[in-house]
Amino acid sequence: MSDVKELALEQARKNGGKLAVVSKVPIENREDLSIAYTPGVAAVSSAIAEDKNLAYELTTKKNTVAVVSDGSAVLGLGNIGPEAAMPVMEGKSALFKRFAEVDSVPIVLDTQDVEEIIQTVKMIAPTFGGINLEDISAPRCFEIERRLIEELDIPVFHDDQHGTGIVVLAALYNALKLAEKNIEEIKVVVNGGGSAGLSISRTFLAAGVKNVTIVDRFGIINEKEDAEYNPYHKEIAKVTNRDFLSGDLSVALKNADVFVGVSAPGALKAEWIQTMNQKPIIFAMANPTPEIFPEEALAAGAYIVGTGRSDFPNQINNVLAFPGIFRGALDARAKKITMEMKVAAAKGIASLVPTEELSTTNIIADAFNENVAKVVAESVSQAVK
Amino acid sequence: MSDVKELALEQARKNGGKLAVVSKVPIENREDLSIAYTPGVAAVSSAIAEDKNLAYELTTKKNTVAVVSDGSAVLGLGNIGPEAAMPVMEGKSALFKRFAEVDSVPIVLDTQDVEEIIQTVKMIAPTFGGINLEDISAPRCFEIERRLIEELDIPVFHDDQHGTGIVVLAALYNALKLAEKNIEEIKVVVNGGGSAGLSISRTFLAAGVKNVTIVDRFGIINEKEDAEYNPYHKEIAKVTNRDFLSGDLSVALKNADVFVGVSAPGALKAEWIQTMNQKPIIFAMANPTPEIFPEEALAAGAYIVGTGRSDFPNQINNVLAFPGIFRGALDARAKKITMEMKVAAAKGIASLVPTEELSTTNIIADAFNENVAKVVAESVSQAVK
Repeated sequence: MSDVKELALEQARKNGGKLAVVSKVPIENREDLSIAYTPGVAAVSSAIAEDKNLAYELTTKKNTVAVVSDGSAVLGLGNIGPEAAMPVMEGKSALFKRFAEVDSVPIVLDTQDVEEIIQTVKMIAPTFGGINLEDISAPRCFEIERRLIEELDIPVFHDDQHGTGIVVLAALYNALKLAEKNIEEIKVVVNGGGSAGLSISRTFLAAGVKNVTIVDRFGIINEKEDAEYNPYHKEIAKVTNRDFLSGDLSVALKNADVFVGVSAPGALKAEWIQTMNQKPIIFAMANPTPEIFPEEALAAGAYIVGTGRSDFPNQINNVLAFPGIFRGALDARAKKITMEMKVAAAKGIASLVPTEELSTTNIIADAFNENVAKVVAESVSQAVK
Repeated sequence: MSDVKELALEQARKNGGKLAVVSKVPIENREDLSIAYTPGVAAVSSAIAEDKNLAYELTTKKNTVAVVSDGSAVLGLGNIGPEAAMPVMEGKSALFKRFAEVDSVPIVLDTQDVEEIIQTVKMIAPTFGGINLEDISAPRCFEIERRLIEELDIPVFHDDQHGTGIVVLAALYNALKLAEKNIEEIKVVVNGGGSAGLSISRTFLAAGVKNVTIVDRFGIINEKEDAEYNPYHKEIAKVTNRDFLSGDLSVALKNADVFVGVSAPGALKAEWIQTMNQKPIIFAMANPTPEIFPEEALAAGAYIVGTGRSDFPNQINNVLAFPGIFRGALDARAKKITMEMKVAAAKGIASLVPTEELSTTNIIADAFNENVAKVVAESVSQAVK
């Protein structure tokens, strides 16, 4: 077992989990008690009973997001169930706090039934100012998120889908600036038709990319073919691969400008990069082992390489997006997180690297850049209608 | 509006609710991130995936209780709904932390349907080490609690019922010591057949009281009468009022040793106290206006008077019980909170006033006595089978 894993276990054991709930108000004497609890608290409850909107001012709903998972698709570990998902959700909550001062509560669910998950989240929703769905397997996550967005009046966001889409788009904006390519003219290949791949594709299309081709296990997704597509593949097939290409990744990559991998270690062969357009941009996001290692990709002619890893340049890391997105949504009291807000978040993230500092090994801000959440939150707030 | 209410509103507005979630682990650099989040966290998740019991050591489940309400019976405000219930639940969570270092998360529910409440709590249960039900109206609360106790493997406790029962029993133990009466020989009248009254009666019976008579709006509960009892009244009628008294409170009180009011302001008339046995013990718990004020009761011959209020001697306050009960249950990893644990908690609370300090105006410990939760937790832990 590696050092970091031992340290993580030791940390969990020592602390009994990563989170604590603390009181923001003093309870040191009877007077404190009469203000924070009875009889004083009745005045706060009465005010909200008269105007439910006051819950956003007078309760923790104002600043609290639930991190909800059924434990069906946790990291690379798969369907490990709710209890085992908990450490990841706690980590996510810790990041919400650290990076954007968002209070966040992990909620892991004793069900993997789509309808039960939707019902449970709806039932607990009055407690929270937003819902972050996490590590729920595809295609169930699509239906769950869609229904909750429709049926709740608080923001619902599945980070595994949109967080990745937003951060990759931010990296793309800066990569295109360096490569001097126009977003409307590039040809993008997304390798992986799961939740992240579909969301990246949709986000790119919303941002103005005209030519996106998605490759999944069974090959290029093609509207005119009759593969075993799920309904989400069929839907995206109508707006991607307008050249109706057939075949595998090597076919899709010919003359492509951008490769985005949300697939498997080693999925991108060096020789395929050589068939891409000039200044190929490679985002190899499989984690911890990318579709191709940066050194090999650069040797094969890649112009820019980004990965999910912190030990290479250009780390494309979800933590750049989700804290600021919820910070902005909560501050603006947004009822939904729209595509406009997501694209605005990507532009905000991209703006964190000033043009004069942009280079092929510096296309995206560091997670610990203290401005990230603030800039993202402002961008997102401004995009709220 | 009174001062305390204005202060409570001001406090809620200034803080945006009473609770914050904080990270117990540092996230200041990439190494921290790799331990608290990916890739390190995978080791913690994997360990729990192999042995679910490790959730009690490695996650916040170890020390976290959900405070769950549907907002149907909040303080004296009635059915004000989930959003308006939130400030009370936040206060409760703040008390859990302050008095027993229990992390606690308010969860308010967008339903008042018994089955939906049960299902929702079951669904979110893997997250928590215990469930504190709060401000759910009777008789729905009985069914909800019973089913959740049966169907979950973590402690479920409806404080409005049992917390009051435990603290009143603690006060009774010390009052009987002073009055030199034997618990098995006393005659107790409980005025109020709601959730608190029924739980007080059951707790007293479990503690050895042989003679309990309950009076509700429609008069004395009598097994041989055919009033409009709910199923819980019918059940308790079989073990209370073995003299088969009929009539109102004044009838029940003749020769009684103890009056426990969980009813309405002014429900106890001074002249009825004069018909009670010698050294009458009066616990007038209606809040904020008791069934009778202490001065009037003492003038009418009461030996000891306790109320729910902090501005009179002998404050019978739930806060003496629930934090330590959950502390003890969590520490012992109890799967249920049994009657034995409740009676043990009452004995623990009673023991906090040393015999030499007992007096008719000092029968129960102050909420801010720093030993309360510790003593209660130890008593409860020892009673876990």
